[in-house]
Amino acid sequence: MTIPVTVAWTPEGLVVLDQSLLPGEVRYLTLRTPAEVADAIRDLRVRGAPLIGIVAAMGVALAAREPGDDSAAAVRQWVDRAGRLLAATRPTAVNLRWAIDRMLAVTQRTMPDARRLSAALEAEAMAIHAEDRAMCDAIGEHGLPLVPDGAVVLTHCNAGSLATGGIGTALAPVYRAHQAGRRVHVIADETRPVLQGGRLTAWELTRAGIPCTLIADSMAASRLRRGDVTCVLVGADRIAANGDTANKIGTYPLALAAKAHNVPFYVAAPQSTFDLATPNGAAIPIEERHATEITMIGDRRIAPEGVAVWNPAFDVTPAALITGFITDRGLLTRP
Amino acid sequence: MTIPVTVAWTPEGLVVLDQSLLPGEVRYLTLRTPAEVADAIRDLRVRGAPLIGIVAAMGVALAAREPGDDSAAAVRQWVDRAGRLLAATRPTAVNLRWAIDRMLAVTQRTMPDARRLSAALEAEAMAIHAEDRAMCDAIGEHGLPLVPDGAVVLTHCNAGSLATGGIGTALAPVYRAHQAGRRVHVIADETRPVLQGGRLTAWELTRAGIPCTLIADSMAASRLRRGDVTCVLVGADRIAANGDTANKIGTYPLALAAKAHNVPFYVAAPQSTFDLATPNGAAIPIEERHATEITMIGDRRIAPEGVAVWNPAFDVTPAALITGFITDRGLLTRP
Repeated sequence: MTIPVTVAWTPEGLVVLDQSLLPGEVRYLTLRTPAEVADAIRDLRVRGAPLIGIVAAMGVALAAREPGDDSAAAVRQWVDRAGRLLAATRPTAVNLRWAIDRMLAVTQRTMPDARRLSAALEAEAMAIHAEDRAMCDAIGEHGLPLVPDGAVVLTHCNAGSLATGGIGTALAPVYRAHQAGRRVHVIADETRPVLQGGRLTAWELTRAGIPCTLIADSMAASRLRRGDVTCVLVGADRIAANGDTANKIGTYPLALAAKAHNVPFYVAAPQSTFDLATPNGAAIPIEERHATEITMIGDRRIAPEGVAVWNPAFDVTPAALITGFITDRGLLTRP
Repeated sequence: MTIPVTVAWTPEGLVVLDQSLLPGEVRYLTLRTPAEVADAIRDLRVRGAPLIGIVAAMGVALAAREPGDDSAAAVRQWVDRAGRLLAATRPTAVNLRWAIDRMLAVTQRTMPDARRLSAALEAEAMAIHAEDRAMCDAIGEHGLPLVPDGAVVLTHCNAGSLATGGIGTALAPVYRAHQAGRRVHVIADETRPVLQGGRLTAWELTRAGIPCTLIADSMAASRLRRGDVTCVLVGADRIAANGDTANKIGTYPLALAAKAHNVPFYVAAPQSTFDLATPNGAAIPIEERHATEITMIGDRRIAPEGVAVWNPAFDVTPAALITGFITDRGLLTRP
């Protein structure tokens, strides 16, 4: 099974797959400074809540990479600044702040010198990456019973290998089922406006040899009515204490449609996506992005000049619409 | 208020606005044969249930336009053939068949000669066009109370002037309210895959000076949750005897979201869209269109080669989700 490498820590810098060019082109970027990492996250060259956590952690480690003769105190300052810069790139996904907080905690430990601090930060970023891979595997195991032989899984956006450092969150049970020899068919919402479903999910599944049918987001309800969908699996950018879940815009109407047709609706996410400090969905900040994501496709204008646009990148699905959470620690269902 | 001319019957042939080029280019096509009319309908150069009814009627009239010395019987044959060709272009909208049936009924009348038959067919097509304009105005009047000063109307696809021979169906009450000096703001779903909302609704409203905000289809549920939407107004391609309504794909999930947030959901359509011969939504044929509508935007590929696509052009909204029907004969609400 072919899983793309989304990120690698190299002597030259942080190497990431530029997801904004897929499916047309597979190109890797080398990011050498925290500012370059922040730009790549902001421009959606790197996206997916778990992956931006990993990449942001590595971005913080970059800040401390070449301390030379500088003091540990100086490195702490650079690292703090990098952490603030990276944390501000995208407000909704909580993994980003969780990863940066872990990195900043390292700087609080007593360190004899800058070089030792830098090494500790690099080790922490590597640990976050390795843990994410393991979390994806665990989500795949816990979700495997939901994807029996012959299953049809409907998904939104991309919560696959491209969104993580491993085999994905929502797609992890699909990959595990495929590895186990089960026949699985994925219905992928194209996911306007950035088309992560059409560009990314369809690409990675096709590459992995898993049958995939692409639909426009608005077709999901008709597909759910048809009665052949086993379950809906989606990822998450932040899960509030009460279970309300922020995920890519379009997840909420998909959950409403799944409910209307009694199709189980599961959210797959690692523990780092659960934010107990946020009481409910209303308290989750929702990022609004630029109008051109809706008015342009590449260089082609698809709406009249001057039209107003509202472009929230995420929505909130109330806990009541969620059948269960597939986490790295197990499957949580409502009592 | 500027309303575009969508169709005109001229000595050179049937002149139609090529809607596939909007909003980038305003270009009119001259269609000289029923086959050219059929192609224009199939390729979505002309679209919108009421408008394709008008254009198909004119297409039938074209078949009889230059009878020369031919017999009325020969003209009847050409007209029958044109009717079959045009009726087969799109299966879901019932207005198409309704208009063609009206034209064919003309050929059943006793006619002394081909020239008289041709004139009668042309007159019938002109009548269908004129009646449509009047129906739009009537829908606008009956829907006007639903659009008070300060209203925010959410709509899907294009059921505006571009879909009809007049001021539209779903947008007719909006135009009337605007003319009456009321402030109205329209939230337009972009309506993937063919983007009739972004390309057409946003274009005609902007041109008419009515404020419009464009959103991706999947954002409508979040907008309805926000609580500032007065009502949802959509058109229809066919309304079954029990009130189940086929309309552009994406209407059904929009109705589910409106229901979840108690926002009134109205379907605007002329009497010709009601099909009492179809008992319910399950009996409405749903057109499936080509994969490239989803995988390509212009010449740009936005999904990987070889991915499967499911592309139904319409969905069915159950009558239970519809607050009322705004027709040319009045507002029908559920008992």
